[in-house]
Amino acid sequence: MRKKIDIGKKILIANEEYAIRNNQFLAEQKKLCLNMISSPGSGKTTILVRTINDLKDKIKIGVIEGDIQTDIDAKRIKATKAPAVQIETGGSCHLSAAQVSSALKNLPISNLDLIFIENVGNLICPTAFELGEWGKIAVLSVAEGDDKPAKYPAIFAKSKALLINKIDLLAGAMVDFDIKRVKNDVYKLNKDIEIFQVSAKTGQGMAEWYNWLKESVKNIQSD
Amino acid sequence: MRKKIDIGKKILIANEEYAIRNNQFLAEQKKLCLNMISSPGSGKTTILVRTINDLKDKIKIGVIEGDIQTDIDAKRIKATKAPAVQIETGGSCHLSAAQVSSALKNLPISNLDLIFIENVGNLICPTAFELGEWGKIAVLSVAEGDDKPAKYPAIFAKSKALLINKIDLLAGAMVDFDIKRVKNDVYKLNKDIEIFQVSAKTGQGMAEWYNWLKESVKNIQSD
Repeated sequence: MRKKIDIGKKILIANEEYAIRNNQFLAEQKKLCLNMISSPGSGKTTILVRTINDLKDKIKIGVIEGDIQTDIDAKRIKATKAPAVQIETGGSCHLSAAQVSSALKNLPISNLDLIFIENVGNLICPTAFELGEWGKIAVLSVAEGDDKPAKYPAIFAKSKALLINKIDLLAGAMVDFDIKRVKNDVYKLNKDIEIFQVSAKTGQGMAEWYNWLKESVKNIQSD
Repeated sequence: MRKKIDIGKKILIANEEYAIRNNQFLAEQKKLCLNMISSPGSGKTTILVRTINDLKDKIKIGVIEGDIQTDIDAKRIKATKAPAVQIETGGSCHLSAAQVSSALKNLPISNLDLIFIENVGNLICPTAFELGEWGKIAVLSVAEGDDKPAKYPAIFAKSKALLINKIDLLAGAMVDFDIKRVKNDVYKLNKDIEIFQVSAKTGQGMAEWYNWLKESVKNIQSD
C-alpha cells in the first residue's frame, strides 16, 4: 500500500505543476475560472446551459467540457453558442490540469469573462486534482439524499459555492431531503461556502447564483 | 502518461490476485456474491434494506458495506439485523479485493446464502476493480437522467443486472427520463443484462428483482 501512496503523490505533484501554470495564466488574464464537480446526473450541464443563456448579455462565458465518453454534454453547451472545448478522458475518472492547459489554448480567452470547467461526473476523484481554477463549485441534487456531505466531505470542504439543485422535486414531498441538515453539515466542513438552492429546470433560485457570478467576475477584473 | 498507465496496470494486477482468491473461496462455499455499483444517492442502501427485510425468511443475506467516510449506511444495514461488515476507504474511490478478502473473514459465511458488496458511490472507478464477486449490479436512479449509459458505458457493459430505481419519481412527470432510451443504450452494450424497474421506496417492481435473486442463489447452490 505504501508504494501506491507514493505513486499517487507523484501523479498529484505532476498535476500540480500544470495547475499552478494554468492558475497564473488565468490570473494574469483576469479571467474567473470555476471547476464544477458533482455526481453524474446532478445537473451540471443543465445549470451551465441556463446560466449561459440567462447571462448572455452580461457575462461572456466559455466552457471546458469533460466527459469519459461521448459529446452529449458538449453538444448541449454548443447549442447555446458559447465557445466550448470538449475533453474526452477515455475512461479516466477526472480531468487533469494538463488537459485543461491544452483546452485553454483552444478557447478565445481574451473575449471571455468566465470559464467554466465541467468536470467528469464523479463526487470523489476530481476533488483531488487541482486544475488551476479560481474556485470549485459543488452541485448536489436533492434526489441524491441529504447524507452526501457527511459521506463525501472533501468536495464540500473545498468548494467556494454549493448549488443544491432540483429543488422542484421537493414539491409534493416526492423526495426526502432535509436542507437544514445539508447546510449544517456543509457549514461544519466549510464556514465560508456560499449555498444556493436552485432548480436549473424551472429557474427557481438562479438569480442569487447569477448575482454571485457577476460579483465574482467583477472582483477578479478589478484585482 | 505512459508511466501512469503502467502503474495503473500494476495496481490492477495486484488487485486481480486477491479477486481471484475471493472468487474461488466464494465458489467453493457456493455463495452468491453481488457487487453493487452506482453514483452516490442512486439508492443502493435503500434497495439493500428493503431486499433484506422482504427476503428475511427466504434468503440469508450478509453485507460488506464500503464508504469513503462515516458508518451511516452500515448502521442502516445493521438495523435490519443482517450481518454487516463496514469498510471505510478513507478517501479511496473504490473498494479493493484485498479489503473484501478481510471483510469476508469477518462475516459468518457458512450461515449465509448471498453476500452483497455495496461499493463506494462512484459510477466510474469501482468498475475497474474486480472484487471476486459472481456479478456486478448497476443501479441508476431516474433522477440522474437517461443519458448515463451512453456517457458511462463501462458499468452497464459489465453488469449482470441493472436496477432502474426511484421510478416513483416518474409519476406526474416530475423527472424527464426515457426508459426506452436507457434500455436501448444498455442492451447495445450488454445484450444479456437483466433490467428491473423499481422503487425501493414504495416497493414497486421489487418482486421481479427478488425472483431473480432467488433463482441466482438456487443456481449457485446447485452448481
